[in-house]
Amino acid sequence: MSYGSTFTAWRDATPAWPAYTRHAFVQGLGDGSLPRGAFLHYLKQDYVFLIHFSRAWALAVTKADTVEEMRLAAGTVNGLINEEIALHIKTCAKAGIDEETLFATEERQENLAYTRYVLDAGHSGDLIDLLAALAPCVIGYGEIGTHLAANKTSDTYADWISTYASGEYQKVCHDVGALIDGAVSRRLGSDPKASPRWKSLQARFATATKLEVGFWDMGLDP
Amino acid sequence: MSYGSTFTAWRDATPAWPAYTRHAFVQGLGDGSLPRGAFLHYLKQDYVFLIHFSRAWALAVTKADTVEEMRLAAGTVNGLINEEIALHIKTCAKAGIDEETLFATEERQENLAYTRYVLDAGHSGDLIDLLAALAPCVIGYGEIGTHLAANKTSDTYADWISTYASGEYQKVCHDVGALIDGAVSRRLGSDPKASPRWKSLQARFATATKLEVGFWDMGLDP
Amino acid sequence: MSYGSTFTAWRDATPAWPAYTRHAFVQGLGDGSLPRGAFLHYLKQDYVFLIHFSRAWALAVTKADTVEEMRLAAGTVNGLINEEIALHIKTCAKAGIDEETLFATEERQENLAYTRYVLDAGHSGDLIDLLAALAPCVIGYGEIGTHLAANKTSDTYADWISTYASGEYQKVCHDVGALIDGAVSRRLGSDPKASPRWKSLQARFATATKLEVGFWDMGLDP
Amino acid sequence: MSYGSTFTAWRDATPAWPAYTRHAFVQGLGDGSLPRGAFLHYLKQDYVFLIHFSRAWALAVTKADTVEEMRLAAGTVNGLINEEIALHIKTCAKAGIDEETLFATEERQENLAYTRYVLDAGHSGDLIDLLAALAPCVIGYGEIGTHLAANKTSDTYADWISTYASGEYQKVCHDVGALIDGAVSRRLGSDPKASPRWKSLQARFATATKLEVGFWDMGLDP
Repeated sequence: MSYGSTFTAWRDATPAWPAYTRHAFVQGLGDGSLPRGAFLHYLKQDYVFLIHFSRAWALAVTKADTVEEMRLAAGTVNGLINEEIALHIKTCAKAGIDEETLFATEERQENLAYTRYVLDAGHSGDLIDLLAALAPCVIGYGEIGTHLAANKTSDTYADWISTYASGEYQKVCHDVGALIDGAVSRRLGSDPKASPRWKSLQARFATATKLEVGFWDMGLDP
Repeated sequence: MSYGSTFTAWRDATPAWPAYTRHAFVQGLGDGSLPRGAFLHYLKQDYVFLIHFSRAWALAVTKADTVEEMRLAAGTVNGLINEEIALHIKTCAKAGIDEETLFATEERQENLAYTRYVLDAGHSGDLIDLLAALAPCVIGYGEIGTHLAANKTSDTYADWISTYASGEYQKVCHDVGALIDGAVSRRLGSDPKASPRWKSLQARFATATKLEVGFWDMGLDP
Repeated sequence: MSYGSTFTAWRDATPAWPAYTRHAFVQGLGDGSLPRGAFLHYLKQDYVFLIHFSRAWALAVTKADTVEEMRLAAGTVNGLINEEIALHIKTCAKAGIDEETLFATEERQENLAYTRYVLDAGHSGDLIDLLAALAPCVIGYGEIGTHLAANKTSDTYADWISTYASGEYQKVCHDVGALIDGAVSRRLGSDPKASPRWKSLQARFATATKLEVGFWDMGLDP
Repeated sequence: MSYGSTFTAWRDATPAWPAYTRHAFVQGLGDGSLPRGAFLHYLKQDYVFLIHFSRAWALAVTKADTVEEMRLAAGTVNGLINEEIALHIKTCAKAGIDEETLFATEERQENLAYTRYVLDAGHSGDLIDLLAALAPCVIGYGEIGTHLAANKTSDTYADWISTYASGEYQKVCHDVGALIDGAVSRRLGSDPKASPRWKSLQARFATATKLEVGFWDMGLDP
């Protein structure tokens, strides 16, 4: 399933992309070698991440220029806050951690840095500045899920993998990719790489990708 | 159905409340005397209003302090942009006006003043500043719908009336009232009227109510 | 003194520009026929306008991409809040109205609509969306001041006229024009009219100009 | 010179305060043991920090409720962007680093985390949420400067020390402390510690203080 031409161009120009999508944490999910404690630590941080990431998608609703942009962003907020997050709540509940505890998780600096950077991308710029900062997480997880589903050698983290490899999540990635393509062409025209803004959008995407690497590093360091 | 103690206190202290909820436009909906042209003009402006009002509810998601506040605000955005607005789209479609035309409606000053005031209440203050500016529209329409359903003498605008009198819409009003009560007590404590902020929250609610009156006035002046 | 090529293009494509810059209120300033009561009413509303307009310029500081953009926007905030506003405070003081009273002036809808629209232009878009909404007031007053200084037939409102005709204020207009030209070329390239965003920037400028006309209308209706 | 009762209460309840104000980096400034390379690395990061910190102060202007709050916040933006930053530009210029290079410094994660956290405190809350996140840097540097001026054993970093120990900078700290006291009592009343918001304001101050510790750690790790 295609994630759109803009996302593909941004990803291909981002040196840290493999460091993110093939990180040791990701490999540990695929071969089951990731310690359970690290996984739970990651899930708790990722719960807090999703709270603030949902806020950033809600910000996108406030910055949309068309009804379609608004509807897609609003649908993503709902998907994040009512569905994706359910995996975290369910898995942590099994481990005896309730949602109130999750919400009160002390946010690690690597976590805080990432979501606040994304929010500021939205506040300081327009919708496509925000989308460039949102893209690495949303679509990167789709790429990781698909890769792990095809290559995993252990079922220890099968629930996590199937969440992001699922048709439903892949559709979110596809829709977000299409939203980005539309929003970019609506603002930068048919040859977006020729726009003076292309470089800074690419830089936003690259910074968010580096912050993803930092997030996995943190995951391995409970 | 109760709309909560905070809303009740704000409404009861707002002199313009009856001018809003018993406006000539409202009476014209109830007795069918409102000219069809004025109704369609109002619906087109109200469509644009709902677009920006949804943006303001999305802003509320970014300003929530608890998961419950976030979920309720996110649900409201979805309700507005995918459900309430359907009445406008359907009614206008019957009159030969498609959604693209609706979206391109030139915004009247009375309309623009209202939604941008609400958005700025959110940007300049915290969640309860925003909720005080959002409340008159959401819950006021619930009050108007209930009143008209019980007192209408014509079925000309029965679709409009039943939308806002419906159990579904009343539940939205009830939930928003509860959201406001919770958000206020979480920030101002158990005796919110003793807070130095009460006066300015009350003033926000009153200003938004006056802007509602201006909106109905505009509705009668196609 | 040139106000820049972008401003000139926006102004020349705005049908309401003469309705704004040659408004009956402006003519009344030039020939002294404007009633004193209307002038004081206008000054009080304009004081409140400048408060919110300064907030919009402060928002521009948060949305700048270069140090030069930041410095110019920060300097403008200071100029507005500490200098331009002094005319209002001084003139009103002579008429027995102190600053606390000015600050507590009840904002008219025409006033509120304008500043909140400008603030939302900034929050929903990027720096140039905001600048397109800020330009008609800042530079339009420069144009009006210059025109009245050359054509006035009365000295009744000479203080007002000389404030906006002064070299100091003209420099502000020139600097803001240069800021706009730079910010636009930095984001849209060397042929900004070819950008898909040009049309919406032009529309923002036109809407703000219409809101200026509404502000003068309000000025004549104390 | 007093920095106000609110600041004092927040500082005294923040366990990480000594880790910030007596950090090894600070000691290295006082006894001259800090390597020049680390100092220049810090100055470059701090230049970028001040850019985003100025944006946060500009955001405060947009969230003020009184003219005094606005004027003080606007004055601080100007002070930061035109004066405090001059130390960085001058010192770096002597070391052959021009401002364009400074502006292009790649922002370290510890740096980015801090400023974006402060900006989000402002966007998600009201003025006092923002001030609680701004206070540790502004006033903490005043405390550090005063302490080092009285206790330094080397003149290697005398320029840095005298910048923050200067009467001019101490006045900024005093004014900001008074701004905080006023803004807090205006919103929370005469017994702010009894407000349900006190705990979260305290937590904001504590988080910003921890991010200061992270910033010094980064300074020692060029």
